[in-house]
Amino acid sequence: MSNNLVKNAAGRFVPTSINGKPVVPFKGVGKYQPTGNRFAPRIPSNIDYPSDGNKQISTLKEALVKAGLKDGMTISTHHHFREGDLVANMVFDCAHELGIKNLCWFPSASFPCHSYLLKYLDDGTISHIEGSMNGPLGRYCSEGKMSKTAVLRSHGGRYQAIQDGDVKIDIAVIGAGCADTFGNANGVNGNSASGLLGFALADAQYANRVIVVTDNMVAFPCIPWQIQGNYVDFTVKVDQVGIPEKIVSGTTEITRSPDRLLLAEMTARFCDITGIIHNGFSFQTGAGGTALSVGNFFAEIMREKGIKARFARGGSNKYLVQMLEEGLVEYILDGQTFDLEGVRSIRDNPRHVMTSPFTSYNYHSKGNFASMVDVAILGAT
Amino acid sequence: MSNNLVKNAAGRFVPTSINGKPVVPFKGVGKYQPTGNRFAPRIPSNIDYPSDGNKQISTLKEALVKAGLKDGMTISTHHHFREGDLVANMVFDCAHELGIKNLCWFPSASFPCHSYLLKYLDDGTISHIEGSMNGPLGRYCSEGKMSKTAVLRSHGGRYQAIQDGDVKIDIAVIGAGCADTFGNANGVNGNSASGLLGFALADAQYANRVIVVTDNMVAFPCIPWQIQGNYVDFTVKVDQVGIPEKIVSGTTEITRSPDRLLLAEMTARFCDITGIIHNGFSFQTGAGGTALSVGNFFAEIMREKGIKARFARGGSNKYLVQMLEEGLVEYILDGQTFDLEGVRSIRDNPRHVMTSPFTSYNYHSKGNFASMVDVAILGAT
Repeated sequence: MSNNLVKNAAGRFVPTSINGKPVVPFKGVGKYQPTGNRFAPRIPSNIDYPSDGNKQISTLKEALVKAGLKDGMTISTHHHFREGDLVANMVFDCAHELGIKNLCWFPSASFPCHSYLLKYLDDGTISHIEGSMNGPLGRYCSEGKMSKTAVLRSHGGRYQAIQDGDVKIDIAVIGAGCADTFGNANGVNGNSASGLLGFALADAQYANRVIVVTDNMVAFPCIPWQIQGNYVDFTVKVDQVGIPEKIVSGTTEITRSPDRLLLAEMTARFCDITGIIHNGFSFQTGAGGTALSVGNFFAEIMREKGIKARFARGGSNKYLVQMLEEGLVEYILDGQTFDLEGVRSIRDNPRHVMTSPFTSYNYHSKGNFASMVDVAILGAT
Repeated sequence: MSNNLVKNAAGRFVPTSINGKPVVPFKGVGKYQPTGNRFAPRIPSNIDYPSDGNKQISTLKEALVKAGLKDGMTISTHHHFREGDLVANMVFDCAHELGIKNLCWFPSASFPCHSYLLKYLDDGTISHIEGSMNGPLGRYCSEGKMSKTAVLRSHGGRYQAIQDGDVKIDIAVIGAGCADTFGNANGVNGNSASGLLGFALADAQYANRVIVVTDNMVAFPCIPWQIQGNYVDFTVKVDQVGIPEKIVSGTTEITRSPDRLLLAEMTARFCDITGIIHNGFSFQTGAGGTALSVGNFFAEIMREKGIKARFARGGSNKYLVQMLEEGLVEYILDGQTFDLEGVRSIRDNPRHVMTSPFTSYNYHSKGNFASMVDVAILGAT
């Protein structure tokens, strides 16, 4: 990276352009005021889409060709399949077979399973990643092997970057546990059910071309349609979009460590004494074992006091679902579904609500509810 | 209207500009290819919105002032309250009190109750209407009394016009049977429940300022949030947004005329003989008494044959709800809810789905499902 560096409001030296695009150094909390307009996708027309609504293409490779895949494009995927994702790897297999080079991969998050893509970073199929780089991909970046500069983005920052036109997605490939040939899609049904699909919303809304890939094509209408087919150009059926047992990891268990349990109990008591736990309050617990235990202690306090929470912010899991079903929580506002109980609940319970980064974390919005959660318990297992 | 007229593809002489804005004469079905980009609203920022999410303003007038109401603006409302709407009249009462002139009223539809606004057309508060003009408002236009030219738009055409930037809404005022102070809103709960609010979707997405008005302000989150608070600038609580008995008119009854019943039965038989009524088919019936009767004859045929429809396109009413609950129809895809049974069903039954003109009638989209309905029975009572 050869670039002029300037000191930002946090006192760090940062570049003023990344991969040839100008970027705004951090100005301090609440100091940056956007002035432009949202990104405006081209106007499509029904003329160019089949009147019977069937947009199915035989193979993902063919869909990518029809979507105009070429060198240097930005290709997005979402991370709701987590460590069980098969879609991103499939996409770049196709790109490689087609001899395409210098793609930017723009996932909402990456997982160790995507170390499969290292070979495509090596051979120039992928020039760089914008989004997240964990495990082997992170190491690859840290060692300076990636030919362009990596950009890490928060979930809300990613929605914002797409909405504002800072990142223009040429082709979004949205894997779904369930879809119809028109492109309506959800993640609540099928062998590869992953819960909600909110992290793919911005991709659907703003990408130039959108491909929905599923292993579970149902008759129109695919309900719920968290991803609306009206945003979708092509649909593809493949054998498998995700590995079920790796989609829902099952590692989100309450801690059994006496020390951590004590820590969790003290945290819950602290929240009680300060008055945070009152009728109609709201909370968020991280997925770690200690944080989850805090939620359980919350539940005990709420039962004793005979009060309930208006809503809990998910990541959802069996503990939160149990609180919802017991009536201790009126609504789960869910950002991602972490286990099969969460998938069942978001499929069947209207009080278990699908959100997206638009709803909750996009700072360039008319407010968002992240700031409205009374208490968030974060922590590592 | 002083304007050059040109002959369009339907052989009619039409103006090339209306109210000073250029318009495209009809070129023939499928002959017009849009080339531009969707309208891009300005980028907002959370900085400018309260961090506790409470956007409530004391009065509608104050909210309109905060939204920057001034002469010549375009103000939109929706028609889900039908003949019971109180919101549009309230808005222009405020504008009149503030001495504002030359507003364009851009409703998704107007009803006889809006003849109240004739005085504001007379005194120049409203310069013209774009949208729909029925009864007294229609007569007023036809008699040439409106100072600018009226523009009639279809439901899908209205969504398209907003999305494409042909009509720029300065302030959208969205009445809702239920809302929270953040602006999340629906029409399924409260005294003024009107069913879904899909006709206000484009207004929320694209208007510069959005005000949600309700008589039923609930604690965050208002679920379902068909209108998302992230699009909303201000919220207002008023005494009443709609007159319940006029929202759901109850006039949508099966015909009792023997002639019309025979006509309906023959229509249903025709559909049966042609093979339209098959397992997994889809249908739409208009709200008229004869058309509704056709739906009932469909139901008889389906019971006899032991088949079911994959979906029915609403306007929903008690007859369609009964078919849904009997299992003759798997899904109702609803555009507007016509009676209290429809409201109950769309509130409680996840198979009774809220749609919008984006989903169903916008031609500048990547397809829409209007073309996918196997048979539509239209007719007058």
